[in-house]
Amino acid sequence: MKAKVHITLKNGVLDPQGKAVQHALGSLGYAGINDVRQGKYIELELAETDPAKAKAAVEQMCRGLLANTVIENYTIDLAD
Amino acid sequence: MKAKVHITLKNGVLDPQGKAVQHALGSLGYAGINDVRQGKYIELELAETDPAKAKAAVEQMCRGLLANTVIENYTIDLAD
Repeated sequence: MKAKVHITLKNGVLDPQGKAVQHALGSLGYAGINDVRQGKYIELELAETDPAKAKAAVEQMCRGLLANTVIENYTIDLAD
Repeated sequence: MKAKVHITLKNGVLDPQGKAVQHALGSLGYAGINDVRQGKYIELELAETDPAKAKAAVEQMCRGLLANTVIENYTIDLAD
């Protein structure tokens, strides 16, 4: 079972990486970009086949290692 | 208009960051993780309102700056 995890900065948290990308795009001549936010995307290949158990396990991993829940949100999508 | 861009390493390209995450999860006692791949997730807030034009613009940005197309794939999803 595959789990797709998105980790994004919470609203209001400064995103210097996103700002750098926005600035670089502006320098390259791309206009009309109001905001850029950069996050992480992690794909986990799990041995677990039960969706509920897999989601609970990935949620624990997010809280324990993958995301800093003080400043980051995470979303988990499961696929076969 | 919002564009969500996923940038992932192509299959076969070594992903040391993913391997590090996999190893760290193993050390923390999470078993049954066969593979971890880490990519980037970028949200762009565009002034453009036409979906076709927005997608073409973001595709250019991906080729020109966001993704290294030699080793990375990108996917673009548009949202209102």
